[in-house]
Amino acid sequence: MEDCIFCKIVRNEIPSKKVYEDPDAVAFLDINPANPGHCLVVSKRHYESITDVDDADLKKMIAIVKVMAKRIKTSLNADGINVLQNNGRHAGQIVNHIHFHVIPRFPNDNVIITYQKVNVPNLDEIQKKLSSTGASSGYEWGTRI
Amino acid sequence: MEDCIFCKIVRNEIPSKKVYEDPDAVAFLDINPANPGHCLVVSKRHYESITDVDDADLKKMIAIVKVMAKRIKTSLNADGINVLQNNGRHAGQIVNHIHFHVIPRFPNDNVIITYQKVNVPNLDEIQKKLSSTGASSGYEWGTRI
Repeated sequence: MEDCIFCKIVRNEIPSKKVYEDPDAVAFLDINPANPGHCLVVSKRHYESITDVDDADLKKMIAIVKVMAKRIKTSLNADGINVLQNNGRHAGQIVNHIHFHVIPRFPNDNVIITYQKVNVPNLDEIQKKLSSTGASSGYEWGTRI
Repeated sequence: MEDCIFCKIVRNEIPSKKVYEDPDAVAFLDINPANPGHCLVVSKRHYESITDVDDADLKKMIAIVKVMAKRIKTSLNADGINVLQNNGRHAGQIVNHIHFHVIPRFPNDNVIITYQKVNVPNLDEIQKKLSSTGASSGYEWGTRI
């Protein structure tokens, strides 16, 4: 995508602090870090979100998330790590190119991830809706993917 | 793990609202949902976190996260989806069995994911630390994984 900021980073058209790169994906330091070492794992191919990403590229990305999590834990002595992947404006996605945040966590840091438990009166109905495969999922209950 | 609550759910020793199951993994509705349809994707094998999970099981889990995200979007008309995976107490991990939250998002819901940008004066040093492969990562810069 010509105007996508992450595609431009992939093509080295704008600078970034890369910490991992291979033929399929890249990781670089987030320009607005929640903590030192906060980085983004990005597929080199442009996808908008987790619902349209190719399975092979998605699996590749999560393997790199694991690599970065291990490096963060080892090199920065992080107490914890959040892996966060936002899809859509109402989920906080700002750049419409699929990416995983890998966020080092420390005691008393400034990251807030919270919600109030909601009451869901129709649990069985929700379960039924989400158990159905639907036309677009491509998977059946009980099959190995 | 005998006393792990998610292992007990996997073995059907305690009830859950399952929405996906195959030989390797399971997804079920979160008992403390942030929104209706909030579910957890769990490996059937016990791992504590993203740094010790087997790569094949991790890749399998993220493929199921994608399946659930598509079902949520299609069946519940969610405007967005957060994928969240917490590692360690300071990152908000409560059950020490690796899991992905798949959280449907709606306008003006009760989910808060936020942080203040921190100033990182030593960006080059952080970059250097995270670019080094270290003994445990098993991957080299520039190689395909």
